[in-house]
Amino acid sequence: MSLHAMCCSLLTITSLLSAQITPEQNVDAQRAPAIGGFSRTSAAAESALEKKFQDGIVPGNIRENMRRLSARPHHVGSPYQKDDAEWILARMQEWGFDAHIETFSVLFPTPKERIVELLEPAPYRAKLQEPVLPIDPTSNQTAEQLPTYNAYSADGDVTAPLIYVNYGIREDYEQLDRLGISVKGAIVIARYGSGWRGTKPKVAAEHGAIGCIIYSDPRGDGYFQGDDYPAGGWRPREGVQRGSVMDTDYPGDPLTPGVGATPDAKRLAIKDAQTITKIPVLPISYADALPLLSALQGPVAPENWRGGLGITYHVGPGPAKVHLKVASNWDMKTIYDVIGTLHGGDDAGQWVIRGNHFDAWVNGADDPISGQSEMLEEARMLGELHKQGWTPKRTIIYCAWDGEEPGLLGSVEWVETHLAELQKHAVAYLNSDSNERGHFLSGGTQDLQRVVSGVARGIQDPETHLSILQRAHLVGISEAKNAEDRAEVRKRADLDVSALGDGSDFTAFQDFAGISTLDLGFGGEDDGDQYHSIYDDFYWYTHFVDTDFSYGRALAQTAGTTILRLADADIIPVDYAPQAEAIAKYETELEKLLKAKQDEITERNLELQEGVFTAAADPRKTFVPPPAEAVPPYMNFAPMKNSIETLKKSAERYSKALAQWQAADSPALARQSLETLNADLLRISRLFLNEKGLPERPWFKNQIYAPGAYTGYGAKTVAAVHEYMDEKKWKEAEAQIPQVAQVIENVAAGIDKAASDFESALAQKR
Amino acid sequence: MSLHAMCCSLLTITSLLSAQITPEQNVDAQRAPAIGGFSRTSAAAESALEKKFQDGIVPGNIRENMRRLSARPHHVGSPYQKDDAEWILARMQEWGFDAHIETFSVLFPTPKERIVELLEPAPYRAKLQEPVLPIDPTSNQTAEQLPTYNAYSADGDVTAPLIYVNYGIREDYEQLDRLGISVKGAIVIARYGSGWRGTKPKVAAEHGAIGCIIYSDPRGDGYFQGDDYPAGGWRPREGVQRGSVMDTDYPGDPLTPGVGATPDAKRLAIKDAQTITKIPVLPISYADALPLLSALQGPVAPENWRGGLGITYHVGPGPAKVHLKVASNWDMKTIYDVIGTLHGGDDAGQWVIRGNHFDAWVNGADDPISGQSEMLEEARMLGELHKQGWTPKRTIIYCAWDGEEPGLLGSVEWVETHLAELQKHAVAYLNSDSNERGHFLSGGTQDLQRVVSGVARGIQDPETHLSILQRAHLVGISEAKNAEDRAEVRKRADLDVSALGDGSDFTAFQDFAGISTLDLGFGGEDDGDQYHSIYDDFYWYTHFVDTDFSYGRALAQTAGTTILRLADADIIPVDYAPQAEAIAKYETELEKLLKAKQDEITERNLELQEGVFTAAADPRKTFVPPPAEAVPPYMNFAPMKNSIETLKKSAERYSKALAQWQAADSPALARQSLETLNADLLRISRLFLNEKGLPERPWFKNQIYAPGAYTGYGAKTVAAVHEYMDEKKWKEAEAQIPQVAQVIENVAAGIDKAASDFESALAQKR
Repeated sequence: MSLHAMCCSLLTITSLLSAQITPEQNVDAQRAPAIGGFSRTSAAAESALEKKFQDGIVPGNIRENMRRLSARPHHVGSPYQKDDAEWILARMQEWGFDAHIETFSVLFPTPKERIVELLEPAPYRAKLQEPVLPIDPTSNQTAEQLPTYNAYSADGDVTAPLIYVNYGIREDYEQLDRLGISVKGAIVIARYGSGWRGTKPKVAAEHGAIGCIIYSDPRGDGYFQGDDYPAGGWRPREGVQRGSVMDTDYPGDPLTPGVGATPDAKRLAIKDAQTITKIPVLPISYADALPLLSALQGPVAPENWRGGLGITYHVGPGPAKVHLKVASNWDMKTIYDVIGTLHGGDDAGQWVIRGNHFDAWVNGADDPISGQSEMLEEARMLGELHKQGWTPKRTIIYCAWDGEEPGLLGSVEWVETHLAELQKHAVAYLNSDSNERGHFLSGGTQDLQRVVSGVARGIQDPETHLSILQRAHLVGISEAKNAEDRAEVRKRADLDVSALGDGSDFTAFQDFAGISTLDLGFGGEDDGDQYHSIYDDFYWYTHFVDTDFSYGRALAQTAGTTILRLADADIIPVDYAPQAEAIAKYETELEKLLKAKQDEITERNLELQEGVFTAAADPRKTFVPPPAEAVPPYMNFAPMKNSIETLKKSAERYSKALAQWQAADSPALARQSLETLNADLLRISRLFLNEKGLPERPWFKNQIYAPGAYTGYGAKTVAAVHEYMDEKKWKEAEAQIPQVAQVIENVAAGIDKAASDFESALAQKR
Repeated sequence: MSLHAMCCSLLTITSLLSAQITPEQNVDAQRAPAIGGFSRTSAAAESALEKKFQDGIVPGNIRENMRRLSARPHHVGSPYQKDDAEWILARMQEWGFDAHIETFSVLFPTPKERIVELLEPAPYRAKLQEPVLPIDPTSNQTAEQLPTYNAYSADGDVTAPLIYVNYGIREDYEQLDRLGISVKGAIVIARYGSGWRGTKPKVAAEHGAIGCIIYSDPRGDGYFQGDDYPAGGWRPREGVQRGSVMDTDYPGDPLTPGVGATPDAKRLAIKDAQTITKIPVLPISYADALPLLSALQGPVAPENWRGGLGITYHVGPGPAKVHLKVASNWDMKTIYDVIGTLHGGDDAGQWVIRGNHFDAWVNGADDPISGQSEMLEEARMLGELHKQGWTPKRTIIYCAWDGEEPGLLGSVEWVETHLAELQKHAVAYLNSDSNERGHFLSGGTQDLQRVVSGVARGIQDPETHLSILQRAHLVGISEAKNAEDRAEVRKRADLDVSALGDGSDFTAFQDFAGISTLDLGFGGEDDGDQYHSIYDDFYWYTHFVDTDFSYGRALAQTAGTTILRLADADIIPVDYAPQAEAIAKYETELEKLLKAKQDEITERNLELQEGVFTAAADPRKTFVPPPAEAVPPYMNFAPMKNSIETLKKSAERYSKALAQWQAADSPALARQSLETLNADLLRISRLFLNEKGLPERPWFKNQIYAPGAYTGYGAKTVAAVHEYMDEKKWKEAEAQIPQVAQVIENVAAGIDKAASDFESALAQKR
């Protein structure tokens, strides 16, 4: 998976523009000489250290890491993946890390038989094969390449009429209802895009389909976007997106939900694993999809369903009849997480964790080796600094995860295995994944918004030479949808760290273990996309993406500096004001959602009564008006609103203490005070958890941050309430509000304790 | 030209829906037994007459008219066009009309030589030919078909690099500026769509291009929309849209602006004709466009520029190099208007005019024979009623126009020739053109909104069996963009008659002669489009459009009944309240436009100062930020607002007198009173004219209704002000406001006089 999954996050600085003050000067003016969380004495050393660290990052090293790690296919269980793990281990050890490989045994199906064939009206057998390109030197490693498939598809052998379902999300099935078309007993064909691919077979099965085909429409990542490979960087006609279709109940090994997949773990039978699809599913290229889609008749697809192929898109069903067969080897594989520790000094019991996966679907130069390569360059430089005499206050742990692609296996099993230790020791987890050209993107828990913004203010964008914070801020203005949004972006001083859903290795840390999280990267200026294809390789990446690794360098500088600050600050550099503000916004969004649904349903019911749908429809075409629905009742959001007021007050109290300390030029505090305060702070993010988890997905414990059950990648904030609202279960949604409010109260209390302890420390000082 | 040109107009009824009242009942409740403008005695006879008229309309006759008139190609100057004229004349005479043919001599170029060829990087010679289809029995009439071309293109022979300019409208050239691309010395290729085709070579020439190619992208009317011909009804790969590219300075014969093209008219030299393009232009199919577009490199086209071809759309310039040659026979042709008069009784000096053109680009079953055929069926039934003893109060004139396609030649030259008589006698002009399946569309001057709404309330939609007014109203709700728009539609009792721009034969009546105008038709449910192709023929129309001519029947009933009411009402059935409301809305739109431009430019200037454009652009791609601009000053709209207040009061006064008469059960008024009142009413629409015309287009005299100089088809209300605003000439725009206000004051005074005379008549009665 990758940053593809991440919503564009807007990064923002205060805008106090006038004829006298340029944006550049404005940012400069705000750049405090102090570093958040550092006492005045330690700040000076930190500045020097950070400069040394940043200057030491070498793009050529990142390039060489990529060349080596992506030289051969290295999916879970492949020989070269083990080889890569051992190479990473050796490097970490060489750089002075206390490193080891930790293995888990996981269920990882690989293809045994794959058939997609059109039987009627004219036979066509799909090739299901990405061709070797002479210009691309690793595309010919066919013996080692995983065939094109969707991992965790159920086995199946089905023959049925075909129906085109657009992206195959729930809204698309509502549209099918309007057309009077049911997918019951049919095989659906969906295009890639609009959320987690596993949603497509899930929703298809819920509607009675018996098979699912997913194809890459050229509108999404092919010639519609730009010249295709190898003339340009975009997916060629026979390019296929592999990928997991694991359901969203829980990530990680399907057989060991909630516990580490250690040799002695109690395992489910495969048939009882909830996250394997209910129906067979296979991905295909548009070259293979074209004969299938062209053979469909029935209504012309709604306008926004039509892709970039030069055909009339029809919905079906028929006359196209398709045979789909999927059979996998349901084998257990060993995965290899490489864990390298740089032991801390005084605060060694506080862990700052950094991770990026290194398994790929094939060669995976972009996904994930672009991130892995720069992360290793960070590790090298930290090792270098350590050799030069620096030891971090806190313990730094660098993790190269295996098994992310199938379902975050490496990180989830590791977090599940070490849950108790992590909850005791973890300060924060910083993730990256694919890294590309463009502007800076940040997601995570907003208690870390200030620290990452402080770092971003000092890192230069390699092409525009603005700070990456300023560039992100200006991009945020340009992408804002309206004047109101622009005004909001302009008034922000910091990055706008967006809530994370799912889609990379931060999930278990944030959602299961309650650890403050960041996910960082660059993107938005790709000259192509070969996501999960054999062509995502070194040749392609170095011709069409971050060709000189300057954005790799920028990410290493940003992520590494953030790690340094988290590891060395006297006071863990969290601040809760941005988080309280974000949570207040999430609550407002729920109220807006209710209002929008009330308005929408009221209007629709009125139009039904007026006869608008029937009058506007073409009488010669089948059209089924939507059903009348009960208008959603008003809900009591008061408990949550009250808890947020409490949270805001606590956050303000803590921020005030911090500001007071900084205003006093950040004097060193007594060791005992710092220990108490840091212990308080470390504990706060755990308070977001509710042991029962989300009502229908108990693995997900975090009550503010979670992925959506039907979106996957995207965040669904306050999911316990939000998802019941999505399901139109208004009473159930309302019933969740008090428990979410309780969680927020708990967080507020935790912050309050930290603020109180901070105030005592300051009083002592005085 | 055709209804394609007309904006969808929303038709609306008051919505007082509750559980007790269904929409049907609601409309019924509003259906007054009285008929607007008719005294109680004449209303009863009118009702019976209208029923007889409507019942007498026979779809089979409309079908036979179409079969006959579209049997062979019949463009201007062709043998079959003369044959059609004589046939129409004979029919009108047979039906009892006093009919004759009136001829004009006009400039009508036809192709002598046409070349489009790609010279580099690989040669390709465009076919420029629509192939014969065996299933389509008239597609093989190649000897009589006009070749694919754009009439009134300048002759030229040019070779240059090619540049893709999207639709080729002004906004597209602003986008090219952002990409740092100039069309100077280049040949541009534009896709059809987004306004009058003549705008494309005009704007291209203004930017320095030396040639223009226009092609039909399949996204607009080809396979993207639905199955192509002959499997479906949409434009096939070698289908071409012919059409005029006459400039918008004035319509009609290019050599006789403002006067009729009679034999003795003073004519311009061809070189002095302002409406011939400055550069050569040819239309091509997408089959011919594909090699050209595929040969372009340079930046990838912006996302909303990309069409439905299975290629990456590049802008260029180069390496594609194109040779374009156009040479025409610049001949004078005779055009044949068929004018049939049914002389009136008491008010024979008041003329009610009905028209539809009958010339086509090729066979033209849809455009224009669908409208012509039903209009002739109206004429037949009126003749039938006349034979049965009925004579209209006023004179009814049915006109079959020649030469509409090249530039409204037949109607413009006729109006120019008969201007003085028309201004003395004309009550109203009712136009139609292509007619298709779907819902009812109405445009025109809103003084006729009440009368056409009253008719539409009583005509049944043949497929939904709602009244066509109710269906249009419900479609209006479904198409409204937001809650505010929906509320506006719901509160209306009548059709929403939209302002007309250009694009069919109403132009000279409304814009030049100041005659109240309606343009009516059905559309929106076409299963295809063969606009200006050889495939727009009887076979295609009867397979994919109004296959049973039930919408032809509905239009004949609607238009014919409207003519009956206009011709027989005691008081000309106009009402000015809807028009005052519409004009007030047009003024509000100007104020909103100014505010939007002020906001847009202020924001853009701020973003330029902040550096947003540069920060958001990909540094590796050419991007030229837009220039800073002066923020538009505030403008004084007060004169217009004051005049509109006066207009509203006058309109209210007239409506009140009318309501008073109707409340008294519409007693018969004294002959002298009626004469005075009708003379008042007949004169009012003339008051919209200003003899100087629009500042830069003096032919267009109407100060409220006009087409846009850069949109062509679409209306540009209050163009004298609006177009200067579009040009960012704020002072010039403001300077136009007082003269527009004066025109509105004049109209108000005219209405006031009518109201006063009406009041006197009522007082006499009492």
